[in-house]
Amino acid sequence: MPEFKYELLATDGRARRGRLHTAHGTVETPTFMPVGTVGSVKGMKMEDVKAQGAEVVLGNVYHLMLRPGADLVEKMGGLHKFMNWEGPILTDSGGFQVYSLNDIRTDDEDGVTFRSHIDGSLHRLNPEISTEIQYKLDATITMAFDECTEFPVTYERAKESLERTIRWEKRSRDAFIPREGYGQFGIIQGAHYKDLRKASIDALVDIGFEGYAFGGWLFDETGSKDTYNETVEHCVPFMPEDKPRYMMGVGYPSDLIYSVQQGIDMFDCVIPTRNGRKGQAFVHSGVVKIKQAQYREDPSPLDPECDCYVCKTYTKSYIRHLFVSGESLAGQLITEHNLYFYQKLMRLMRENIEAGTFQEFAAEWLPKVK
Amino acid sequence: MPEFKYELLATDGRARRGRLHTAHGTVETPTFMPVGTVGSVKGMKMEDVKAQGAEVVLGNVYHLMLRPGADLVEKMGGLHKFMNWEGPILTDSGGFQVYSLNDIRTDDEDGVTFRSHIDGSLHRLNPEISTEIQYKLDATITMAFDECTEFPVTYERAKESLERTIRWEKRSRDAFIPREGYGQFGIIQGAHYKDLRKASIDALVDIGFEGYAFGGWLFDETGSKDTYNETVEHCVPFMPEDKPRYMMGVGYPSDLIYSVQQGIDMFDCVIPTRNGRKGQAFVHSGVVKIKQAQYREDPSPLDPECDCYVCKTYTKSYIRHLFVSGESLAGQLITEHNLYFYQKLMRLMRENIEAGTFQEFAAEWLPKVK
Repeated sequence: MPEFKYELLATDGRARRGRLHTAHGTVETPTFMPVGTVGSVKGMKMEDVKAQGAEVVLGNVYHLMLRPGADLVEKMGGLHKFMNWEGPILTDSGGFQVYSLNDIRTDDEDGVTFRSHIDGSLHRLNPEISTEIQYKLDATITMAFDECTEFPVTYERAKESLERTIRWEKRSRDAFIPREGYGQFGIIQGAHYKDLRKASIDALVDIGFEGYAFGGWLFDETGSKDTYNETVEHCVPFMPEDKPRYMMGVGYPSDLIYSVQQGIDMFDCVIPTRNGRKGQAFVHSGVVKIKQAQYREDPSPLDPECDCYVCKTYTKSYIRHLFVSGESLAGQLITEHNLYFYQKLMRLMRENIEAGTFQEFAAEWLPKVK
Repeated sequence: MPEFKYELLATDGRARRGRLHTAHGTVETPTFMPVGTVGSVKGMKMEDVKAQGAEVVLGNVYHLMLRPGADLVEKMGGLHKFMNWEGPILTDSGGFQVYSLNDIRTDDEDGVTFRSHIDGSLHRLNPEISTEIQYKLDATITMAFDECTEFPVTYERAKESLERTIRWEKRSRDAFIPREGYGQFGIIQGAHYKDLRKASIDALVDIGFEGYAFGGWLFDETGSKDTYNETVEHCVPFMPEDKPRYMMGVGYPSDLIYSVQQGIDMFDCVIPTRNGRKGQAFVHSGVVKIKQAQYREDPSPLDPECDCYVCKTYTKSYIRHLFVSGESLAGQLITEHNLYFYQKLMRLMRENIEAGTFQEFAAEWLPKVK
């Protein structure tokens, strides 16, 4: 069984080309993780997710603990076997998801009590419970349990929350049962306050994790990316070089390029899958919203520059017809294309970092993609 | 380009093992045609439909004329290219579907005027229009335009409707443009009145088609199959031996076995796909309703006797979890299994007819499958 280890292969500016060794296989970084919330990447067979280039996928503690339950998944041999995914799985700790349940959640120093969005039943998460659930799920990468705050948030509230998060992450680390090839990541909080983010990194490095992740929310309601960019640019240099850096819940293709440029190694996001189901295809020239009438008689593929199965096989006209007819196959096909597009983007970034041409690549791609 | 031709290879009792030669390839019969109503077998890529064993699929004039329209499909190179299915396609003429639009339909001697279920717009179908639409769709097998009646129906009404249907089918034949490897089937009507069904066959044979189909509805509300069985048993011997015999819209696995035993060669039905989306899997021992609590922790496949991809890969516990979680993948996986199950059943029937063991096969399978 290989040691859980991040290997830095090359750099280009701040951008890093690396390799993550785990109990369930190797991951070439930078990498994008499709989201399999309840144990499936919506509408996709896992073999198709793999065929598009994914090497690691994400599962959600919050959803899986409610249904079907961590004990059932454990009984069925763990999440890998249950969902038919042999590669590494990273599980979100549930902190971000319970945070979004504003009306049905109470926090205390120990943890969070919340009501299920499915049946209203009462549940509890704290560092120990979250870590145990991830153990039962057999997550290759366990995430520490953190507290999220609203955004924007006052300095006092962000500081108080960060202090609690650090206590929770220490408890998460204590509850983590080390296994060869398995790792646990700490989550950096502190909202957009640079000194808090820096303090968060220092505290997490003191505790000692196999990787470090950016948590919380840094995009404001105007859609401006200034806060995100400033925070990432400020913080990344303080993160350990010998550990993977994971940006949680990001983002659009341009966000991935920007963040890789800043030295981030791992991403997850529902955008390629959720937006795919809603008829939005990510393409080399931006976005195709398939519902638009302009595509009614368009015999070209979703993306003429793409060589995925969907683009080699189907026209915009056909996919639009399926979409306006309410056929689920439309969403499946666009999702498949989007996952391919994201994985191809990651592959090109890895190749360009290796070749020392990443800055040119980013300058060429950033203006044209979404 | 091959001639459109039915080749009888072997018989076992009334059961027939044959081969249908068409412009778009050869079909081994008895065969089951998955239904691709609006140009997709719901939730399935056509390559997966083919991988399960399908050789011919069905499209619907009614749905396709409303959306995206026959002119668009023609402009896109025909239905084969549009939906990515190189094999033969049979298109239903629309007669049965407009018949089900009771409240928004008016009939006259020339044809039927009806309102779209999508936007209420007025449309017209008659023998010439239906045949032209099927030409534009590039259907390998065109169906004649018929009038359907309610069931049960009085003798007078059934006779009157049959006479109109015969006039319509003659007009359909006149409107059919022969092309090498393409065919047109007549539809036998006459409800459950044996003399009317016999008269229908005689009239259709006089007109002369490349195949003959059973239309109308013969299952009463009690679910009894007596009327169906009696009608089929009575009529099949009057059907030409050198032409394929197609039972429209049938059915459950046991219906297929029974009907093949009576000499039917072709079937289409939404049951494996629609019921699959509703969580019903057809298996060697009958039916699995995946929602049932008994499957919550069941580590066995949908059908332990099945060797399809789904059964080799996933547990009932996992598919049930996806189904109760509302994940579309559940329906996709059960649909895929069901299509495989249906195609395997057809293959076994073909093999047993060839081997002269069909009666034993039917006696063994009829009591256990749904």
